[in-house]
Amino acid sequence: MSKHGKLKIIPLGGLGEVGKNMTAYEFNNQIMVVDAGIMFPRNDMLGIDYIIPDYDYLRQKADKVVGIVITHGHEDHIGAIRHVLSDISAPVYATLLTRGLIEVKLARNNVTAGKAALHTVEAGSSVEIGPFKVEFFHICHSIPDSVGLGITTPAGLVVHMSDFKFDHTPVDGWPTDYAKLAEFSKRGVDLLLSDSTNAERPGWTPSEMVIGPALDKVFGEAPGRVIVATFASLISRIQQVGETAMKHKRKMALAGTSMVDNVKIARKLGYLNIPDDVIVPLEQALQMQDHKVVLMCTGSQGEPSSIVGRLSAGTNRQFDLKPNDTVVLSSHPIPGNEESISKTINRLLRRGATVIYDALAPVHVSGHASQEEQKLLINIVKPKHFLPIHGELRQLKRHAGLATEVGIPEENVIVVENGQIVELSGGKVRLGERIPGGYVFVDGQSIGDVDYDIMRERGKLARNGIFLIDVSVDKLNGRLLHDPEIITRGFVSPEDAEEMIPEVRQRIMQVVNGGGWDNEKDIVNAVKSYLYEETKRRPMVLVTLSKA
Amino acid sequence: MSKHGKLKIIPLGGLGEVGKNMTAYEFNNQIMVVDAGIMFPRNDMLGIDYIIPDYDYLRQKADKVVGIVITHGHEDHIGAIRHVLSDISAPVYATLLTRGLIEVKLARNNVTAGKAALHTVEAGSSVEIGPFKVEFFHICHSIPDSVGLGITTPAGLVVHMSDFKFDHTPVDGWPTDYAKLAEFSKRGVDLLLSDSTNAERPGWTPSEMVIGPALDKVFGEAPGRVIVATFASLISRIQQVGETAMKHKRKMALAGTSMVDNVKIARKLGYLNIPDDVIVPLEQALQMQDHKVVLMCTGSQGEPSSIVGRLSAGTNRQFDLKPNDTVVLSSHPIPGNEESISKTINRLLRRGATVIYDALAPVHVSGHASQEEQKLLINIVKPKHFLPIHGELRQLKRHAGLATEVGIPEENVIVVENGQIVELSGGKVRLGERIPGGYVFVDGQSIGDVDYDIMRERGKLARNGIFLIDVSVDKLNGRLLHDPEIITRGFVSPEDAEEMIPEVRQRIMQVVNGGGWDNEKDIVNAVKSYLYEETKRRPMVLVTLSKA
Repeated sequence: MSKHGKLKIIPLGGLGEVGKNMTAYEFNNQIMVVDAGIMFPRNDMLGIDYIIPDYDYLRQKADKVVGIVITHGHEDHIGAIRHVLSDISAPVYATLLTRGLIEVKLARNNVTAGKAALHTVEAGSSVEIGPFKVEFFHICHSIPDSVGLGITTPAGLVVHMSDFKFDHTPVDGWPTDYAKLAEFSKRGVDLLLSDSTNAERPGWTPSEMVIGPALDKVFGEAPGRVIVATFASLISRIQQVGETAMKHKRKMALAGTSMVDNVKIARKLGYLNIPDDVIVPLEQALQMQDHKVVLMCTGSQGEPSSIVGRLSAGTNRQFDLKPNDTVVLSSHPIPGNEESISKTINRLLRRGATVIYDALAPVHVSGHASQEEQKLLINIVKPKHFLPIHGELRQLKRHAGLATEVGIPEENVIVVENGQIVELSGGKVRLGERIPGGYVFVDGQSIGDVDYDIMRERGKLARNGIFLIDVSVDKLNGRLLHDPEIITRGFVSPEDAEEMIPEVRQRIMQVVNGGGWDNEKDIVNAVKSYLYEETKRRPMVLVTLSKA
Repeated sequence: MSKHGKLKIIPLGGLGEVGKNMTAYEFNNQIMVVDAGIMFPRNDMLGIDYIIPDYDYLRQKADKVVGIVITHGHEDHIGAIRHVLSDISAPVYATLLTRGLIEVKLARNNVTAGKAALHTVEAGSSVEIGPFKVEFFHICHSIPDSVGLGITTPAGLVVHMSDFKFDHTPVDGWPTDYAKLAEFSKRGVDLLLSDSTNAERPGWTPSEMVIGPALDKVFGEAPGRVIVATFASLISRIQQVGETAMKHKRKMALAGTSMVDNVKIARKLGYLNIPDDVIVPLEQALQMQDHKVVLMCTGSQGEPSSIVGRLSAGTNRQFDLKPNDTVVLSSHPIPGNEESISKTINRLLRRGATVIYDALAPVHVSGHASQEEQKLLINIVKPKHFLPIHGELRQLKRHAGLATEVGIPEENVIVVENGQIVELSGGKVRLGERIPGGYVFVDGQSIGDVDYDIMRERGKLARNGIFLIDVSVDKLNGRLLHDPEIITRGFVSPEDAEEMIPEVRQRIMQVVNGGGWDNEKDIVNAVKSYLYEETKRRPMVLVTLSKA
């Protein structure tokens, strides 16, 4: 069958960064979206709650969007769905658990999918979404019910491997569907997109199985309560903790809304196999003997507002840390979180708890393929072209390097970042147009109206503080009406400021009463240069000027 | 010989943190200081240049300080010397290279040691410093001329192991003095202090030797210039780059003052063996053919103001990055720097350079002992008591765990953080008084007048920006004299602010003209609640009030 037409692959998120994964496929003016995730802010993104992809391209063509496909239920793949659905009405396709987690998320934010019906799909099934024939196949990741996609269009066959690992002994006993990958290979894959997260990690990611014995040891040695922190969406880990709890005759309690909600839906749908009598309400667990209890909560990334974050700071409302508690941080630092995790570990230790984290015991393994798995995937699929996704540029480049090592010609390996459209037509891949591919910041309830300018201003405020001056001038004779009011914040100590204020007033008076000044800027400059002389710092100096 | 008297070990820095190492020993009211380092600020320490130990305890007893001993020439051991010497006049003892690097540092800041003479000591020699007999012995680290200390006092023998590794093939061919350690062991060591930096790292730290072949490969494959970034004080690494340059017939140029100064002193003192004809001035190197050149510079930690930082941002003055450049980052991220290093790598890649870092090739090895070396040290020295130093609490605790694993009784292992004095008397160790052990922030030219309150204010400014209002009230009738002046920074976009201002003015007018208000706070609260309604954000609202 000869190939015809042009398929556009539109990377909207996750290429050139870790998080907010989102890719769109466009054929014949119809668009299918794959994933809609969020990203957590970097340290220099001041006051930002989270970040969603800039999907203005989709908004402009909202009526062309024929479907949204979600590969699995982690935040960096489903977190932005509620924002997308408020702009775009299109059916959403997901497996049973993924769909359940999306529904939890929508309900929590009082969003209804509206016209956008949620459709349940199964690994092994296929769905026609506009011009796209999508075949769903099972892959292993750290959450059950994850799928990869075979996307057939008249322009060719694309395999979209979202987050995956080749785990031969996964918690749910369901390995990756190698046969399907081989079948695609036989049919001829024009383009493979694949997860680059661990492209710098040599070897093979350990199986989820190694966590069982590690947890077993921790539970066996813990003199008091065990508190396990992980992501609320890490369903496989919750299953493992439940099994270990049973073995050690401990009851399991869940702390935090997202943990409670996710466990509820996963149990209801049959993805968590923990008997009713093992799970007890938190209030009950807190009354039980310490060595009979395991508490599951969030905060493995050291988030200050999470339960473990609050326990470490001594500010948790419902319960406090006890010195014989054993806290298990079952996750790996997301880049940028290393510092806050370390701070949390140190604080927990300072409060006397025993803390177990991945440097001490294998209480976490990655959910992402390492180099040998990434190469195996490429060798099974044997794609004509390769496009690494999900990673910072350093990981994308490294993944590209692996692809050429296993024999994909260098000119068929495409490294692009968000916003650079890639086109497949006539069996060839080339770069298309460049569209915006940046960040949309979510801060408070507002979206998108915090931009880099504002963040730069915040950074400036933060570095040296502010120095505010209110100047009132007599509009008749142009002289100061009264002593300037001065307020400083984040600059120097109140005592030091007090000492400088007379001289600042003096300088302002010289400028104003001396005449020959144009506007606030002259005052600002005079004050700035004095403050720099005195302190070698450059606070933001702001003047409000009124004439009466 | 019976032991008598009480030795106080006073941890002033480096216990409970990575950096600003400083320990004092006090016997019979005489004090010897070991090391005086700086620490680089964490991400949440806004606008801070660096941090020095709080050594107020020493300042109070300045006339009791009989000497300052420095173990090696890295910033986290010598960086605060100029501050200490401005408060305390005491002789400084250091090996030849360490002394040279201290002199460079003092000269650059126009500080003269003053009455505090610098004394050169040699590994293998011993010096009487007040009641302390200090035996210096050679240890391996990533800088030549590092020493450990055997400190004999009437209260007992203490071995002070600063940063070390057991490298059998160090760059300078001079391994650790195991014989001396064994000799101390034979004499009976009452207390061992030892570097905990890598206490979470299993195994044995690779030798410096592995870097040679890695650099060789990089130099062999580089089509154009090689740019190697490392710390200016990593003298061993500079030697290795020099040797590789010679092998590949490249000339070596140094960029940046600290790199130039340190290399100059190290060559002068014979610690760098690079022939004159290999080193060329930077200006000359920039005129040569690309494949004939290697440039050494700073910036391996992604510091924005370093040469590599500026190259990655395209803002370096003297030269730009070229697409066929190969940039080698020869260092490991200091905790907290992971994010800025990643950003730098991504930017360099985006500019087309090839970037080699430790995840891709062994172009860096740690200078610190891993677990097997730490255990070996304890087994050689066989101390009665053990005190882990140099590390966050998580590393100190882990190191303590290693000590008990090799047989030190748990009650003889002391984990303390800065400020907790430890006392050795009668062959026993116990906790002494608690003194301040915090941070002294250096910001601009001023020291110590930026405290946590100011930093908290800066954080608050940074999270949501500021909203400033100048209100002028008629002192006769208490009504607004004119429309309030309003300035916002870092809050919302100027357009959005413009939209909110009429309503803000309205709210202020209601408060002021309605009467019944007490002070600025009522205005602040009215504005705050309106802004929160509108934006769900809480900027810092400041009011300057004048009555005319």
